[in-house]
Amino acid sequence: MDPRVREHAAVLVDWSARIEAGDDVVLSVGPDAHELAVAVAEKLGERGATLLATYGSGELTRAYQRASGEDFDEPDHELALYEAADVYLRIGGGRNTSATADVPGETRQAYRSAHQAVREARFDTRWVSTVHPTRSLAQQANMAYEEYRDFAYDAILRDWEALADEMAKLKARLDAGSEVRLVGPGTDLTMSIEERSAVNSAASVAYDSHNLPSGEVFTAPYATEGEVTFDVPMTIQDQPVRDVTLRFEDGEVVDSDAEQGAAVIADVLDTDEGARRLGELGIGMNRGIDRFTDSILFDEKMGDTVHLALGRAYDSCLPDGETGNESAVHVDMITDVSEGSRLEIDGDVVQRNGTFQWEDGFDG
Amino acid sequence: MDPRVREHAAVLVDWSARIEAGDDVVLSVGPDAHELAVAVAEKLGERGATLLATYGSGELTRAYQRASGEDFDEPDHELALYEAADVYLRIGGGRNTSATADVPGETRQAYRSAHQAVREARFDTRWVSTVHPTRSLAQQANMAYEEYRDFAYDAILRDWEALADEMAKLKARLDAGSEVRLVGPGTDLTMSIEERSAVNSAASVAYDSHNLPSGEVFTAPYATEGEVTFDVPMTIQDQPVRDVTLRFEDGEVVDSDAEQGAAVIADVLDTDEGARRLGELGIGMNRGIDRFTDSILFDEKMGDTVHLALGRAYDSCLPDGETGNESAVHVDMITDVSEGSRLEIDGDVVQRNGTFQWEDGFDG
Repeated sequence: MDPRVREHAAVLVDWSARIEAGDDVVLSVGPDAHELAVAVAEKLGERGATLLATYGSGELTRAYQRASGEDFDEPDHELALYEAADVYLRIGGGRNTSATADVPGETRQAYRSAHQAVREARFDTRWVSTVHPTRSLAQQANMAYEEYRDFAYDAILRDWEALADEMAKLKARLDAGSEVRLVGPGTDLTMSIEERSAVNSAASVAYDSHNLPSGEVFTAPYATEGEVTFDVPMTIQDQPVRDVTLRFEDGEVVDSDAEQGAAVIADVLDTDEGARRLGELGIGMNRGIDRFTDSILFDEKMGDTVHLALGRAYDSCLPDGETGNESAVHVDMITDVSEGSRLEIDGDVVQRNGTFQWEDGFDG
Repeated sequence: MDPRVREHAAVLVDWSARIEAGDDVVLSVGPDAHELAVAVAEKLGERGATLLATYGSGELTRAYQRASGEDFDEPDHELALYEAADVYLRIGGGRNTSATADVPGETRQAYRSAHQAVREARFDTRWVSTVHPTRSLAQQANMAYEEYRDFAYDAILRDWEALADEMAKLKARLDAGSEVRLVGPGTDLTMSIEERSAVNSAASVAYDSHNLPSGEVFTAPYATEGEVTFDVPMTIQDQPVRDVTLRFEDGEVVDSDAEQGAAVIADVLDTDEGARRLGELGIGMNRGIDRFTDSILFDEKMGDTVHLALGRAYDSCLPDGETGNESAVHVDMITDVSEGSRLEIDGDVVQRNGTFQWEDGFDG
């Protein structure tokens, strides 16, 4: 076994999920994620946690969903499982990232509705989502398998404690600030962040962070004004999307366009009222990620990028009792800020061309 | 997909487990059983059942067990899952039938103890165990992969309704009888079956039968006297065993020997008091099984064979409220009855050289 597989397992179990003796753990294993699952099982045994492994197969889900049509019962046994669980660890990694491509949207939606309570119970655990680097993910990234493994482990096996300290600096600035302005090629956008708290997403439940890798600081902006261009190509709802531009007035998108995938963006915007407003401003700070791989888990964490999401805001960014932007969708889009860009908080340039105020080489 | 995979799924879901709309189903998927699992998921969707897939990997279990040592907590979340489930379907099929070979016995035992309540909750569902024919099972059977698939589907894709009717004849004779005598090369054994009911094990929960394939009639004998030779080679506790002979007096084994594996048999006999008495007499009636493959799921169901188990008796064979032979073990051993053999019930020859009284060619 590549020693990095065991290191990945150790980060997941100890840093991310903070597993302790007696924790009841559900481990979801993708069909090609066996090797990491074995390493995680070993680590769970060492820590004295219990283990129930579930099989996270897109092909099973597809077969089940298509055969069911739009008629799904709520799975009471699955709900009982997660209500009694302390931790949910999801290891993605299949043999085909398009395994569920031909499931009709109405069917997906009906399945999602029947599993709403299960999903909420899962979010009430100390949940963490990661991926095992598989050949299908390498293919999606246009990379060779060995090359992709190097890429993935560079992103995952960070000094998370040090990165958390680094990200704390940005969080402090955002928490103290009122207005963010993002300027770059095709972009000049202002957002209010008054009364909102940023999340230091350091790939650990101890930081309200549930992805491994992570490495971003995000908050929930509102009252957005201006224009933004997302120059990082990505896949949204199984469709390729490129160079999206959005224009905001009074917090809402009033105009949108795209070099490719304009119809998908229009669809997203039409989902509901909240889909026309921003739910997230995220600033990528994981410098272990050095390229885009068409996977949101990695892309949005990349250093020198900023992402914005249309749709639902995360509760962890909101004052107690306040509901932020609500929507059935949360669609992230990314812009490269490595050149000709700056991020201001209350008029103070905090990041220029990807370099932060407190870093060597910052050119204020 | 080989059409037999979908046929297997249909037999499992409809005949064996009697799945109905609203059933909450747990499907355990072996690491190499993906294809059958997909077909079962499809069938469950058609029937309107819910589905939670678990990952039944020996390698995960081994890693977890070895890392834990002998210290296991009870998995409360897994217990909650099975207590809320209606059906448990287990599809065996890994990449190595010896995946857990180096787990110490004490560790296995400690794990088993911690999972006792889970196991009981599982047995309280409409559970069925089957296997997907994998390369590792073909290897265990000393067969080519394609050859093994033909073998397995011949055993599994029976006319179960017709076989159940056939087996009902033997069940009626056993239920009405008081004493069974088995005679053959190296064998002359009598057993009492007074007050015991036979199970018509027709591979369906509707028949108290939980294996697919099945195809045997079994009961719980006692007061065994005489000698028996088991001439079918098999693997017991990971050890090869051949030509075991047992001599019974007053229902208990008083002497044992074997061409190979005598020490394993002695170990079994020393487990506890019940391990020296019979817990099961089973008569194989599945003529789709035409050879021994070193897998008890198939071997004990083969036509022209009789098997006896040392240890625990099944409750379904006992009068209400009566406890049969109790033991921590249940070890099946098989004898070929195709030549020079007869099975008598109360002095009446019911089977001779594998042919039953009611069949063409029976030579009373």
